[in-house]
Amino acid sequence: MKREAYLRLAIEQAKQALVHGDVPVGAVLVRDGEVIGSGFNQKEYRGDPTAHAEILALRDAAARLGRWRLDDTELYVTLEPCAMCAGAIIQARISRVVFGAWDSKGGALGSVLNLASIPALNHSVDVIGGILEDECGRLLTEFFRERRRESGGMPEMAERARLENG
Amino acid sequence: MKREAYLRLAIEQAKQALVHGDVPVGAVLVRDGEVIGSGFNQKEYRGDPTAHAEILALRDAAARLGRWRLDDTELYVTLEPCAMCAGAIIQARISRVVFGAWDSKGGALGSVLNLASIPALNHSVDVIGGILEDECGRLLTEFFRERRRESGGMPEMAERARLENG
Repeated sequence: MKREAYLRLAIEQAKQALVHGDVPVGAVLVRDGEVIGSGFNQKEYRGDPTAHAEILALRDAAARLGRWRLDDTELYVTLEPCAMCAGAIIQARISRVVFGAWDSKGGALGSVLNLASIPALNHSVDVIGGILEDECGRLLTEFFRERRRESGGMPEMAERARLENG
Repeated sequence: MKREAYLRLAIEQAKQALVHGDVPVGAVLVRDGEVIGSGFNQKEYRGDPTAHAEILALRDAAARLGRWRLDDTELYVTLEPCAMCAGAIIQARISRVVFGAWDSKGGALGSVLNLASIPALNHSVDVIGGILEDECGRLLTEFFRERRRESGGMPEMAERARLENG
């Protein structure tokens, strides 16, 4: 399967986050062409600050394999990972991250920070960003537009929600 | 209670990690003088790359409070947090981190990186490092010394284990 196809599986994950009103971000972890873990953002639903799509996909794969080390895997995620998720990717020794939309507000694999190849951390990650960027980004833009409308067009409320969930 | 007293509770947590052969790191989360979450490193035991002491303490507190936002809290942890944990601390809006030993190999609150106050991330954390530094560090040094001895004094094996668990 091609990169785009795996990223579309991540998009399907992202859509599940919408059911509980969570910001739509999804991820799948792939090894040897096989999906071994998946997750979608459940921060609001679970009331857990660490329940980002990437963290849940990593934990899902680790539980299946029965070990924390997830080397020789590729993570496909709809949005550029934040510092927590980029750190988790390093902890798990993931080989490559392919993501959709760049996150200029909190992205930690090139936008605000770049944790992908800090020599002292003893693990570097290959990063490919901007694949299916429009499709991945549209999910988010539509989510926040809808939220703005629900908040009666009060931009400061929508902005606050964006900052808290981004 | 004073800082040192909370950090001693984190040390008690750290010792529990030893039961399963995990690197001894412990954490407690405090709000208004009350411990609302605790955790110790269980990466090997759970086979979960995200099961660091800090992440587990945050998730414990979030589960008790029923929400992801942990503002007005202080995290006490025996070792300087890594990038993943520092990122989680930011995600959870924790106010202050007090830690024991500095981690020159992977610390992300001052040593290798400093994620504590990056303007773009929209949340800054007050950080106090080096409290009960010797006591917190000794736990780790003794753990790795013991491991070296068990590996028949083969330094490269012990070093590999250190890197993988650090």
